Amino acid sequence: MTTRSWWGWGTVEDAVTPEERRALVERVRAVLPDADLTFHEPPDPAALDVPESRVEAGALFSTDPVDRLTHARGQAYRDVTRNLAGDLGQVPDAVARPRTEQDVVDVLDWCSGNDVSVIPFGGGTSVVGGVEPRELGRVVTLDLRHLDRVLEVDATSRAARIQAGVLGPALEEQLKPHGLTLRHFPQSFEFSTLGGWLATRAGGHYATLYTHVDDLAESLRVVTPQGISESRRLPGSGAGPSPDRLFLGSEGALGVITEAWMRLQAPPVHRAGASVRFASWERAVEAARLIAQSGLHPANCRLLDPAEAFLNAGSPSSVLVLGFESADHPVDALLARALDLCGDGEVVEGAAQRWRKSFLRMPYQRDAMAQHAMITETFETACTWDRFPELHAAVTTAATEALREVCGVGIVTCRFTHVYPDGPAPYYGIYAPGRWGSLTAQWDEIKAAVSEALLNAGGTITHHHAVGRDHMPWYTRQRPGVFGAALSGAKAALDPQGLLNPGVLTTRST
Amino acid sequence: MTTRSWWGWGTVEDAVTPEERRALVERVRAVLPDADLTFHEPPDPAALDVPESRVEAGALFSTDPVDRLTHARGQAYRDVTRNLAGDLGQVPDAVARPRTEQDVVDVLDWCSGNDVSVIPFGGGTSVVGGVEPRELGRVVTLDLRHLDRVLEVDATSRAARIQAGVLGPALEEQLKPHGLTLRHFPQSFEFSTLGGWLATRAGGHYATLYTHVDDLAESLRVVTPQGISESRRLPGSGAGPSPDRLFLGSEGALGVITEAWMRLQAPPVHRAGASVRFASWERAVEAARLIAQSGLHPANCRLLDPAEAFLNAGSPSSVLVLGFESADHPVDALLARALDLCGDGEVVEGAAQRWRKSFLRMPYQRDAMAQHAMITETFETACTWDRFPELHAAVTTAATEALREVCGVGIVTCRFTHVYPDGPAPYYGIYAPGRWGSLTAQWDEIKAAVSEALLNAGGTITHHHAVGRDHMPWYTRQRPGVFGAALSGAKAALDPQGLLNPGVLTTRST
Repeated sequence: MTTRSWWGWGTVEDAVTPEERRALVERVRAVLPDADLTFHEPPDPAALDVPESRVEAGALFSTDPVDRLTHARGQAYRDVTRNLAGDLGQVPDAVARPRTEQDVVDVLDWCSGNDVSVIPFGGGTSVVGGVEPRELGRVVTLDLRHLDRVLEVDATSRAARIQAGVLGPALEEQLKPHGLTLRHFPQSFEFSTLGGWLATRAGGHYATLYTHVDDLAESLRVVTPQGISESRRLPGSGAGPSPDRLFLGSEGALGVITEAWMRLQAPPVHRAGASVRFASWERAVEAARLIAQSGLHPANCRLLDPAEAFLNAGSPSSVLVLGFESADHPVDALLARALDLCGDGEVVEGAAQRWRKSFLRMPYQRDAMAQHAMITETFETACTWDRFPELHAAVTTAATEALREVCGVGIVTCRFTHVYPDGPAPYYGIYAPGRWGSLTAQWDEIKAAVSEALLNAGGTITHHHAVGRDHMPWYTRQRPGVFGAALSGAKAALDPQGLLNPGVLTTRST
Repeated sequence: MTTRSWWGWGTVEDAVTPEERRALVERVRAVLPDADLTFHEPPDPAALDVPESRVEAGALFSTDPVDRLTHARGQAYRDVTRNLAGDLGQVPDAVARPRTEQDVVDVLDWCSGNDVSVIPFGGGTSVVGGVEPRELGRVVTLDLRHLDRVLEVDATSRAARIQAGVLGPALEEQLKPHGLTLRHFPQSFEFSTLGGWLATRAGGHYATLYTHVDDLAESLRVVTPQGISESRRLPGSGAGPSPDRLFLGSEGALGVITEAWMRLQAPPVHRAGASVRFASWERAVEAARLIAQSGLHPANCRLLDPAEAFLNAGSPSSVLVLGFESADHPVDALLARALDLCGDGEVVEGAAQRWRKSFLRMPYQRDAMAQHAMITETFETACTWDRFPELHAAVTTAATEALREVCGVGIVTCRFTHVYPDGPAPYYGIYAPGRWGSLTAQWDEIKAAVSEALLNAGGTITHHHAVGRDHMPWYTRQRPGVFGAALSGAKAALDPQGLLNPGVLTTRST
């Protein structure tokens, strides 16, 4: 049994150990001798002044202050810093934990009848303010954790009907006896839910092909104030615009996903991998592009820039971590061809293992360092290959300038999480000394600067982190205005009172 | 220079030769000695009584009767039989051939101001009544043939900005000097347009992976009555529901696609292929499933049932036509592994070549045989592998019964055009002797029977032929009602007067 941290990432048991913390602090002190790295304990949640609920508890939901506090926001850096500062913001008035789909219908009915907003919580790992009541009236947060079963497995078509509240590990555990896997491993895997992945168009760990949850969804079941939408199980269909693609990425603003038929795969048995070091970032990017366009479809094709590789893979050069896997056929020839495409890149040992270990600890380390007033956060985008050099220069310049202005100093790192034939998904990391008491505001200033740079350089405000409330100012500029109008029209049809996650995706109906 | 047939498929020059016709008729007579195969000439179009236009010709459009006649409907069997019978139905009041995007805007503005409906025509190859004014008021048909240029090529990202009115061959010709191809080859390739493919979610010739135009679209530009929607060029994005996926499959009901950035590929240089004969249909289906789930991604994986193979590939057994291709690496090992998965299937020679030749002649032969009162038409669907045996049995039973009832006798064939990890896309052919003068009604009765069977067995009313007007009764039952409401909400926002291709996708606004 483990306990979820009330203020930071993951479980209390997996948080950084005192030794790990000491090592991290020493490492930072070596680079930033002047930084004030004083340790700050999180406040006692029992001592926090959780505002009174404005709804009456009943069979449908709890108004317990701890329940409400632990459902008040997601897991972004700015959520952690606000928690550490005891800054609660708005807290939902109640938390519903439906045990059946009918319970979900009943909660929505009740909320419609009482003009109360509804925020679907998923696993609560949003890093974009997606599950946070912000400047809203009364709010019920919907936690589907009890809807956590694989209900049906179709081994012939390799698909399963799965309830939306299931967490990653419980999902894989239920599929294992059938010899199948969803093979969807976002960094939040342990703590996020199928419904959350679908509602936010999550990206998995794999670099190419079937890695986005969009492509893994065969059909969806969604509860809306106008009734339940259930699409047919179809491997492909050209019957009008895809119903599922409207709900994928709808972030709770069009309905509550309760179930999905998901496409599964046989677990891989053939594997081959290597890490390649490059003399320059440009050559490394070129190799990643050639591999992305080769049709080799690597499972892993993660490019780390020298700073990222130094911090997390023990090498101060650009490193491309390559991996192939298959449940059906050997993949050595594919790896060999990919290595050909790396030209004069040099195979190095151990980087992939170090990277993997570091990857899993990152969110815990981010929160530990926040207690020492460090600003450690990420942001991500995608763009076409032709625009990448310019976007990368603009973003790193904007980030570096913002760090200098806001923090005096700081480091910007870059990696590619996914590569497509027509472009990469660059993922940036920020490491800078903050000022205790001002961390949230400092981060917000940096985030605004890099978001402007991303948007102006033709990128997307998010590749797989979703829009939430934090990205709304840039999202509304990025999407075509005409599409925004269509989306508002669709929302008005399904949610005429505007109660579903208001403030996300569509500007609030008034 | 070639001339488009006014009443049937393709060009006058490529229509069946007298020898080809004689051979076809003899072949049918051998199987159906009692059929009345009298030849019927198409009516003289100049002698047809094209109703007066109800709009005034101007700079924006032509009201010439021949223009209007040749834009009155698509290329389905029921379009051909109505043409042969001189049954005009409603004819558009005018045909607009914009030379610029601004012309498109102007036409839409004029139509809005004058309460006139607009039907985007594409290449006019709709087989589902998608471009036909049916029970409408005044109508202008929009023919984008002059918007036929590749405007920009980004060789680094392998993408191009292309005008929507370009036909397949002209598109490929413009890409060729750049060493790139869209590699999208629907059966209608010669006569259909990029805009039509996008608006109807067209499926290409290839069996797996990047074959649907949906996946080839990087960004779209769409003219709507509320303004122009242009999405960003992004290889991937999780910023809300995909704007492009709303317009893909919108069949002209939400806007007029004028341009798109399309993902391109290098032309393949490595190829390997084989045809495999199976002792039974069930074993052949099983092999197709295993290959679809193997991750080998064949370019071709077309399964022909014995009747289809007999008629079009010269072998009275189930035949799987396999092909692999790559621009980057040899594919012989992939073919070898696919052949392993075929178990005791037996490699046969020549079937693929015969199939290919037959495939390209099919639409011409369909129309030639319609002149002899033969009913020759296709319909298609997709379903999961677990449901396929039951769906296939239900559909062939329904088709056979309908043929017996309507025509006394007939043949039903099946092939897979595409295979997915979770299911096939079965494509059915109907061959039966009709009654001159009643062909359209006879086909409509057969079509209704098989559509009911498809829908009841869990399939989709269309895998890649689109919805149009012909599939509306089944489409509205297939799609989730809640999604239908969302789509109507989106349409009301973009096309408040309901002038865009009314009767398609959303029930007509009143």
